[in-house]
Amino acid sequence: MKDLTQTDADALIAKLGTAAREAALALAEASAERKHAALIGAADAIIASEQAILDANVLDMDFAAEKGLSPSMLDRLKLDSSRIRAMADGLRAVAAQPDPVGRILAEWDRPNGLHIQRVATPLGVIGVIYESRPNVTADAAALALKSGNAVILRGGSESLNSSEAIHQALVTGLRQAGLPEASIQLVPTRDREAVAALLRAQGLIDVIVPRGGKGLVGLVQREARVPVFAHLEGICHVYADGDADLEKARRVVLNAKTRRTGICGSAECLLIDRKFYAQHGAVLVQDLLDAGVEVRAEGELAEIPGTVPAQPTDFGQEFLDMIIAAKLVDGVDEAIAHIRRYGSGHTESILTESDATAARFFKSLDSAILMRNASTQFADGGEFGMGAEIGIATGKMHARGPVGAEQLTSFKYLVTGDGAIRS
Amino acid sequence: MKDLTQTDADALIAKLGTAAREAALALAEASAERKHAALIGAADAIIASEQAILDANVLDMDFAAEKGLSPSMLDRLKLDSSRIRAMADGLRAVAAQPDPVGRILAEWDRPNGLHIQRVATPLGVIGVIYESRPNVTADAAALALKSGNAVILRGGSESLNSSEAIHQALVTGLRQAGLPEASIQLVPTRDREAVAALLRAQGLIDVIVPRGGKGLVGLVQREARVPVFAHLEGICHVYADGDADLEKARRVVLNAKTRRTGICGSAECLLIDRKFYAQHGAVLVQDLLDAGVEVRAEGELAEIPGTVPAQPTDFGQEFLDMIIAAKLVDGVDEAIAHIRRYGSGHTESILTESDATAARFFKSLDSAILMRNASTQFADGGEFGMGAEIGIATGKMHARGPVGAEQLTSFKYLVTGDGAIRS
Repeated sequence: MKDLTQTDADALIAKLGTAAREAALALAEASAERKHAALIGAADAIIASEQAILDANVLDMDFAAEKGLSPSMLDRLKLDSSRIRAMADGLRAVAAQPDPVGRILAEWDRPNGLHIQRVATPLGVIGVIYESRPNVTADAAALALKSGNAVILRGGSESLNSSEAIHQALVTGLRQAGLPEASIQLVPTRDREAVAALLRAQGLIDVIVPRGGKGLVGLVQREARVPVFAHLEGICHVYADGDADLEKARRVVLNAKTRRTGICGSAECLLIDRKFYAQHGAVLVQDLLDAGVEVRAEGELAEIPGTVPAQPTDFGQEFLDMIIAAKLVDGVDEAIAHIRRYGSGHTESILTESDATAARFFKSLDSAILMRNASTQFADGGEFGMGAEIGIATGKMHARGPVGAEQLTSFKYLVTGDGAIRS
Repeated sequence: MKDLTQTDADALIAKLGTAAREAALALAEASAERKHAALIGAADAIIASEQAILDANVLDMDFAAEKGLSPSMLDRLKLDSSRIRAMADGLRAVAAQPDPVGRILAEWDRPNGLHIQRVATPLGVIGVIYESRPNVTADAAALALKSGNAVILRGGSESLNSSEAIHQALVTGLRQAGLPEASIQLVPTRDREAVAALLRAQGLIDVIVPRGGKGLVGLVQREARVPVFAHLEGICHVYADGDADLEKARRVVLNAKTRRTGICGSAECLLIDRKFYAQHGAVLVQDLLDAGVEVRAEGELAEIPGTVPAQPTDFGQEFLDMIIAAKLVDGVDEAIAHIRRYGSGHTESILTESDATAARFFKSLDSAILMRNASTQFADGGEFGMGAEIGIATGKMHARGPVGAEQLTSFKYLVTGDGAIRS
């Protein structure tokens, strides 16, 4: 890893950024067919270059093993035939989505004789900063291209060879479709100064999407001078209301915590209405215990055998593991107050048969996703019907919730008159 | 003007921001009726406190005259009965608009059994920084309140007394409607350090809207660590294509330049297709000259008697005056290239009867507003049917074009299942 000075890094990103801007102009005008062809061509090229990608991945794995990466990080870095096929399938799935650019988002006529349309346009240039998961190279590029945006990719340093090999295949697709090669660029260095330069590249990069753990996302959110689509943590709550249906509640709580514990939509805190507890007892907690979950319980709940007493820090914590915090509350208002204080604005679910109580929960909370009688594990672009997602955003500017190709667009107004002048 | 230290200023803004966040929680849940009542109450209070507002304005006018403000700035600062009535009418007009919060922006069903709604929510806390135009105090507060946002207002230092008197009336409206007084706050100091503190108040303020000239907007865009909705300049182009209708072209060009020259939607550059010029000659330029416009013409156009030869700096310049740059181009492609190079992304209009040429202009340019056979002077939220506007944005994130109450909202997803779990 050679040492780039800040000036070198800024110059490198300025070069990539300028090329990306130029490419973005062409991409904004590219037909849906052409972008589709580039994605299909890239998928074919990934399959055709399987051996080259695997060879590059061996270099990365050796480098990473020498560096002493953990087994789970090595696993994420490793590619095999089936993971390469999955990347190609991902490109084809994005290709098959409707083209988001040029959609008429709204249109209306005005008494002044004007016809006004609001039409979707690409955002411009997207920077994606991710960890050593080579598949993100293909996934992120596909969504950016579909939405007519140029992209600058900066993967984890251990995956550089793999990412370069995948990038070559993506460029083959672009070339075959007659789109500029600079539509998809990879930062060609492991030097971290390049990340800092990306984060301050105002005017060259329109938005940065970080993909990875809290360390990476936190760094990007703190340092970026460019807008960021991200969530720092997914501290998702499930609230079992006094008017919940017992069987639905049992099913949803168990799924929300245990289906997959490592994803941001996994539940980290269970709030139980005292009314529910008085009627049904320990059943929700017992289900979790039976499934092998460590339940960190507060107050009366801590009397349930098998639970662990909760520490104050267990509330507002993202465990990403078979652990959940649990607490009794006095109805939906206390649940709302708890979530406002401890939530991260990602996803919360209420279990209730009462329309009024659900409406209160939906109105008073302002997380990106609020659910009723559904598992927080559904917080996912695919499950929402958006096709692939580049991430989930908890900010309130522009994109919020799952960020798919549609959310990577802006809009412009097209106004038609017949010689109309303003009086 | 006492001297605030940076620490003092940050503490002041933190205090206002914290109160605003608290108020924003209540506002997000406030019914449309309650917000309506607050706006009507504020309008009534403005009329009722006319004398107090006029008295405060006299203090400001004296202070400003001593400071040596220009006559045009003094005029903007001055209030009289009719301007006070106009403010009250503005509040009533915003009150009469549909409530933008809670609108269902999209909804759909998923094969997994989920029903998904995307629903409009307030952004949170808006900071408005403006010059010494006291009416902005009422206008900006009205749009923020309508869209359920708390607002922190920072007007020009010369207008502080007037703004405080108007602010009192707005607070009366809030109080009568039972909404928190901190929904609308005024920065209670002339010290400029408070502006710097507003611009760096990440986490407290969700978006800053600057209203004023290029100096103010440029400062805000450079310094803000918070998102900004703004346009720096309105360098609007009109392109008369070879397929333009002569009479429509004459009408639109004259209106686009001369109706009002001081607004951002006023045309600053006329591009004439050589085909149009060959057929119709100097007519468009002659109309402008006859109306008293200084035409800074390039190439052959400079041979038209009465024109002034254009300097290179005349292209890409916002004159805001009875001046226009003019140039011949070879068809729509050269017009597009010129606008990409010199435009500010605000508003451009093509004059043509050719659908294909108009489509090319609409597709290849990416200004916030593109028009066909219509005057650029229509670039205005009121003309677009949005009611009042807080400004026009040329960025591509979140809001673009006229920023009305709708554009001051974000959204959240409401997901309903019936015990749905993810497999």
